[in-house]
Amino acid sequence: DPYLKVFTLNSNPDLTHEVTNQIGVEIGKSSIKRFKDGEIQVNIEESIRGCDVFLVQSTSEPANEHLMELLIMIDAMKRASAATINVVIPYYGYARQDRKARSREPITAKLVANLVEKAGATRVLSVDLHATQIQGFFDIPVDQLLGEPILSKHFQDKGMEDIVIVSPDHGGVVRARKMADRLKAPIAIIDKRRPEPNVSEVMNIIGDVEGKTAIIVDDIIDTAGTMTLAADALLEKGANEVYACSTHPVLSGPAIERIENSNIKELAVTNTITLPEEKNIDKITQLSVAPLIAEAIIRVHEQTSVSTLFE
Amino acid sequence: DPYLKVFTLNSNPDLTHEVTNQIGVEIGKSSIKRFKDGEIQVNIEESIRGCDVFLVQSTSEPANEHLMELLIMIDAMKRASAATINVVIPYYGYARQDRKARSREPITAKLVANLVEKAGATRVLSVDLHATQIQGFFDIPVDQLLGEPILSKHFQDKGMEDIVIVSPDHGGVVRARKMADRLKAPIAIIDKRRPEPNVSEVMNIIGDVEGKTAIIVDDIIDTAGTMTLAADALLEKGANEVYACSTHPVLSGPAIERIENSNIKELAVTNTITLPEEKNIDKITQLSVAPLIAEAIIRVHEQTSVSTLFE
Ligand SMILES: Nc1ncnc2c1ncn2[C@@H]1O[C@H](COP(=O)(O)O)[C@@H](O)[C@H]1O
Ligand SMILES: Nc1ncnc2c1ncn2[C@@H]1O[C@H](COP(=O)(O)O)[C@@H](O)[C@H]1O
Repeated sequence: DPYLKVFTLNSNPDLTHEVTNQIGVEIGKSSIKRFKDGEIQVNIEESIRGCDVFLVQSTSEPANEHLMELLIMIDAMKRASAATINVVIPYYGYARQDRKARSREPITAKLVANLVEKAGATRVLSVDLHATQIQGFFDIPVDQLLGEPILSKHFQDKGMEDIVIVSPDHGGVVRARKMADRLKAPIAIIDKRRPEPNVSEVMNIIGDVEGKTAIIVDDIIDTAGTMTLAADALLEKGANEVYACSTHPVLSGPAIERIENSNIKELAVTNTITLPEEKNIDKITQLSVAPLIAEAIIRVHEQTSVSTLFE
Repeated sequence: DPYLKVFTLNSNPDLTHEVTNQIGVEIGKSSIKRFKDGEIQVNIEESIRGCDVFLVQSTSEPANEHLMELLIMIDAMKRASAATINVVIPYYGYARQDRKARSREPITAKLVANLVEKAGATRVLSVDLHATQIQGFFDIPVDQLLGEPILSKHFQDKGMEDIVIVSPDHGGVVRARKMADRLKAPIAIIDKRRPEPNVSEVMNIIGDVEGKTAIIVDDIIDTAGTMTLAADALLEKGANEVYACSTHPVLSGPAIERIENSNIKELAVTNTITLPEEKNIDKITQLSVAPLIAEAIIRVHEQTSVSTLFE
């Protein structure tokens, strides 16, 4: 189909390759370079006039560079007369700045939505948006794909028995509930207080974990403080083993060291964020969201509903 | 005046200090930090409700980081109910991507204008915009301040005689003409071809330079290829000495080495871009635009016309 084009930028080239392989198209020809002063230079090297263009880019670390690459490429695509510009943002950075928690704070997740839209995107596809309000930050359609079935299937395939799905905080209960329903397991909740950002403290476990295999589930794993302390707390309360899973492996600062030294047997994540070599440790299993994204792209392109993918 | 607040970000804190000293106010209290994953965290630490806020930030290298700092701070200021958000961008990055030179190119200078406006800026003040069309890229008022009087005065104060003002390309003739008029000097033009970006080639000199002190004037000095080759060509054509000046010292890649090794006696620049230690070499004289910006801020705040500053 000459009217379906998939382009990649610098955040997730491997994922995009998988996606285009599944769809059966080539990656669109483009390049992104730097002028000597660091300004981004974009080149689209084939006609996209009248095409449904899909552009894959996570606004993962370095978030500002990846975001500007995305915005500049959208601008170029708009000026190259693409029919639709569908932005696939597997990991939506700045999602945790989603409300004014204190006076005079920005709402950067909303700012990013404004910028993507202003640049010229006509649709956004993303995986597990951190906050439900982010869909509403856009005036263009936003399709949210879910990582949970991929993570659930991974544990299902292991044939584990007597499991309990653990939410690391009260905000994650809906997510844990979904996985628990699929795996026909009960849930437990970690009742913790977080004194400041990037610092976590495990307090108390609500629910029965004794003699069970615990699977902690979260959407973002960042410094891994919460997860590793939760693992200790679960074992202390009599859990047999602790597994963990998270859609988005941000893994910043001390995360890798913490996971290596933790009581977590395995951490399952997806490839919404590309893991650099040094973060690709044995304990981490990376599962691909490519089939999910490929299917969503085909359905959007075919103008059919993607809604069956979403719940 | 409690309704005038001047804030700085990370690009030009020293310049902002000079500006606030001249105006006689303190710099507004704010901080800009990073989360562990590199995302920007902004805090405005005093009330700005109902105030005319002036925010000083060049989108100089690292352009994307500086631009995102700016956009996030504008968003925070908007949500903190500032009456007006006046963005002072001494150096406007991405200004050279100001038109579609080839097919499917972005117009990033226009994209940046869209982003600044969408974030919530109500007015832009800038110094020597690279392209005249950039003012028109905004729907909000843009005040362009001119660096030329500052650079001209520097050479005037030296009491030089028999000078010729040299434009390094045809696009810079208007700028050279202005300086020549002020210094009551003739102009010359370098007629060059540039095979690709960041590579320059001096061709031919139009105008008489023999026995004269040449002053090359440009708006941006980036890799310094043009300037240093122009200096050689001018000496070859019989110029006595070669000086150079440029409003914006981008000075990327080999620039400093080239200037050190060049026949240029002195390069005068302004502080629209902060020079790091290693670029602050003896041959470079940095002149301050703080008085210009301070005056513009006062006039904008007083709701009077700033137009007398502009031609
Ligand atoms: N990149 C980040 N890294 C760590 N904390 C963040 C980041 N962005 C926002 N936050 C903080 O995370 C909190 C929101 O997280 P949550 O309650 O999980 O939505 C707020 O206190 C934010 O200040
Ligand atoms: N940051 C940059 N560094 C070097 N060249 C650039 C930069 N941005 C744009 N350009 C190129 O500079 C040319 C425009 O410069 P000018 O003709 O002086 O306006 C175009 O060919 C651009 O591709």
